[in-house]
Amino acid sequence: MENKTTLSVLVENHAGVLSKVVGLFSRRGFNIDSLAVGETDDPGISRITIEVSGDAYTAEQIEKQLNKLIQVIKIKRLPEGEFISRTLTLFKVSFTASKRAEIMDIAKLMGAKIVDVSQSTITLEFTDTSERTQILEGLLRTFGIRECVRTGAIAIEKGTTITRSNKSSK
Amino acid sequence: MENKTTLSVLVENHAGVLSKVVGLFSRRGFNIDSLAVGETDDPGISRITIEVSGDAYTAEQIEKQLNKLIQVIKIKRLPEGEFISRTLTLFKVSFTASKRAEIMDIAKLMGAKIVDVSQSTITLEFTDTSERTQILEGLLRTFGIRECVRTGAIAIEKGTTITRSNKSSK
Repeated sequence: MENKTTLSVLVENHAGVLSKVVGLFSRRGFNIDSLAVGETDDPGISRITIEVSGDAYTAEQIEKQLNKLIQVIKIKRLPEGEFISRTLTLFKVSFTASKRAEIMDIAKLMGAKIVDVSQSTITLEFTDTSERTQILEGLLRTFGIRECVRTGAIAIEKGTTITRSNKSSK
Repeated sequence: MENKTTLSVLVENHAGVLSKVVGLFSRRGFNIDSLAVGETDDPGISRITIEVSGDAYTAEQIEKQLNKLIQVIKIKRLPEGEFISRTLTLFKVSFTASKRAEIMDIAKLMGAKIVDVSQSTITLEFTDTSERTQILEGLLRTFGIRECVRTGAIAIEKGTTITRSNKSSK
């Protein structure tokens, strides 16, 4: 069965590590749906959030291969339904006086923030799940999306559970 | 002079491209401050937003090297002050009954959204500039940040200007 797996990977914060991790995926033919990389509260450690498509066997293989990289400190496959996933998108939409009220209504309805306005464009900032981002995109498409810039998805477990390197106490 | 340069790079949407781009940075010793990758409205094209530290000479060298990769469709160095930059962070903060009101006030004040609450933790979603994200982080640190997950920064030009591949019109 085709599934989506979300991996939270803690790695050493070196320039070459991301290249190694991504290279492993491309060499093995694993398909990355989304990738986000950011610092953690420990300046020596970065976190890579990766969404991959594939069956359970593929997910296991990916984990196994990642574990072989010495710069990988910890890998956690986030359990479905037990984490919050968010993605950030900036949409630049074409805009005429007659459509202004409609776009403002959609922004309000969906919880998008207007961050820039020009004579003929309006730029919206939107943070939500991938699913809701697709809905907003569909609504905006009728006006004409001039440009759209996205981050990959990031994920955090619900409740008190955290993904920590084994270096620290849990 | 040490500066921060923001590059918006359009690349072919192949598994190996990100690995090539990141590999180039690590091989040449260019330091990536932040990296975000996401799809564009054209499914064949991804956009990588990269923030790098360095002088004007370094920025030029990076552009030159990236231009040599055939999978790179377009590179744009975003002009300072003429773009909007945003980053998304999820903060899981320790939380006791006596601190609840204070954390809620900070969230409201800064425009952070509460996305999860447990007996002893509260999770905030925050989208803003890197500078304002640092301010929120400072405010939350006094309560104890249990975990923090970030995207890299993404950027979009102000006004009507867009970064488009030469394939399309404009």
